[in-house]
Amino acid sequence: MNLPSKVTICEVGLRDGLQNETKIFQTSEKLELATGLIAAGFKVIELGSFMSPKAVPQMADTDKLFQDLNHIDGVELRALIANKKGVERAINCGCRKVKLNVSASRQHNLANLNMTPEESVAGFEEIVNIALQHGIEVSGSISMPFGSPWEGDMPLESVQSIVEAYLNVGVTEISLSDASGMAVPNQVYSMCSNMQERYPQVKWWLHFHNTRGMAMANILAAMQAGITQFDSSFAGLGGCPFVPGATGNVSSEDVVHMMDEMGIETGIDIEKLIELSKKVRQIVDHDTDSYILKAGRSKDLIRK
Amino acid sequence: MNLPSKVTICEVGLRDGLQNETKIFQTSEKLELATGLIAAGFKVIELGSFMSPKAVPQMADTDKLFQDLNHIDGVELRALIANKKGVERAINCGCRKVKLNVSASRQHNLANLNMTPEESVAGFEEIVNIALQHGIEVSGSISMPFGSPWEGDMPLESVQSIVEAYLNVGVTEISLSDASGMAVPNQVYSMCSNMQERYPQVKWWLHFHNTRGMAMANILAAMQAGITQFDSSFAGLGGCPFVPGATGNVSSEDVVHMMDEMGIETGIDIEKLIELSKKVRQIVDHDTDSYILKAGRSKDLIRK
Repeated sequence: MNLPSKVTICEVGLRDGLQNETKIFQTSEKLELATGLIAAGFKVIELGSFMSPKAVPQMADTDKLFQDLNHIDGVELRALIANKKGVERAINCGCRKVKLNVSASRQHNLANLNMTPEESVAGFEEIVNIALQHGIEVSGSISMPFGSPWEGDMPLESVQSIVEAYLNVGVTEISLSDASGMAVPNQVYSMCSNMQERYPQVKWWLHFHNTRGMAMANILAAMQAGITQFDSSFAGLGGCPFVPGATGNVSSEDVVHMMDEMGIETGIDIEKLIELSKKVRQIVDHDTDSYILKAGRSKDLIRK
Repeated sequence: MNLPSKVTICEVGLRDGLQNETKIFQTSEKLELATGLIAAGFKVIELGSFMSPKAVPQMADTDKLFQDLNHIDGVELRALIANKKGVERAINCGCRKVKLNVSASRQHNLANLNMTPEESVAGFEEIVNIALQHGIEVSGSISMPFGSPWEGDMPLESVQSIVEAYLNVGVTEISLSDASGMAVPNQVYSMCSNMQERYPQVKWWLHFHNTRGMAMANILAAMQAGITQFDSSFAGLGGCPFVPGATGNVSSEDVVHMMDEMGIETGIDIEKLIELSKKVRQIVDHDTDSYILKAGRSKDLIRK
């Protein structure tokens, strides 16, 4: 079984997790979690987003988080942005990494924005240029590359065409995000193999939701295809935007636990991570989709 | 990605699921579920066990189930047994397939039975002979071959030695059962590869619990190693015997859904299966670990 010896996990709970919660976390709680994550060994953290505070009130204090944490070296703190206003906020608060997103679904994009996904990405050019001029790195996400509620199956050529649109505007770090939880392992394997072979210059991330219980199998398949960078969310926080009540992002502690037990290095202290995820679950005050929070680590089961 | 075109799923919910429930199902409810499973396309079903009704009251009516269903051809209905009394009950009610079980953990077996696992299996010889004389097929299960709460890691040689003990008493159908939910994909892959290469005469089954969220990834790894027979439980019913409150068997509808979406044939009608699992969840009247019951199939998401 062909597997990497080491992977990088980006904690997205502070953004993709918390934006799905009705309860708005206090800035002090977020700061405590972020510093805890750094202490646990995370080197990449999605701290928040620069969206309209009216549309996403949970992320209204993202600027403050960056102001407080942007002095930290050796940890990439990234924010999701959607427009020029977003990159301006990033500049002002000292954020050094932003992520753009486009839907791979043509119908979704046309209905929402009256543009094809490629036109949306082409429209990012000005934002990318402003960011780069200010020393801010830019990555691009493609959501639903493995299937969408609009089209069903997603043709590979359609995803390639969006990747090329990103390359055209100078973005070479790309995330494939299965937000609808439709990806299956053999599809993930062939998509990841194809993408890496065709675009070796790209730094890939995979972002899986566990909506239909396949996230861990998809991570396994992606690793077999050579992918080493994955998003996950503390306590499994998050949701499926198309299925109310469904589970969301794969849980960070479940992923790190599997990597630990498989002998794949993450650099993350799982005991510290579990403590943070327990704190998160306590704040949100509802059950979440995290196996390790329920069952504990395999190691904990072993009688001394 | 090397995968089979077709797999066989054994529904174990009526045994491994229901024996973990405090609510005792009525015989009529079990019969309705069993006939529903057959109508949905299952060709192998674990119907119950012949244990002491005092120890496992949930399984007390297993004889009655076999009496009512043993006329059905083309479907293997199996029962778990532990001793000579069990095989005698199997003979009397027309059960044609029994399964024995031994713990791979030496310490567990010594503490419980004052015997090594190999001695336990050697002691099955009389039971196997009686069964075979009466035209009853026998399979053997090995629980915790991927790790146990007593020893932690399980040496491969230790599992091989139990497999050989089964072969010595004439059992050539063997199930590896991760009841403690400690298995990880690369370990599953190497164990399954090794076992099939070393014992090509054995018909293998893999039985995964989703205690730590890894069951689907483990099934993927096992398929890549050539395994094509898996146990699962409707609605994800079952428990981890060592972790109170933890989730149990991987859910049948989650497994069949993944196979469907991967293009791997199961012969099972997932819509019928989902209806049965909903009925099960209604009877047990508590939430269970089934993603498809919560989120629906990927196909259901696609807008018409």
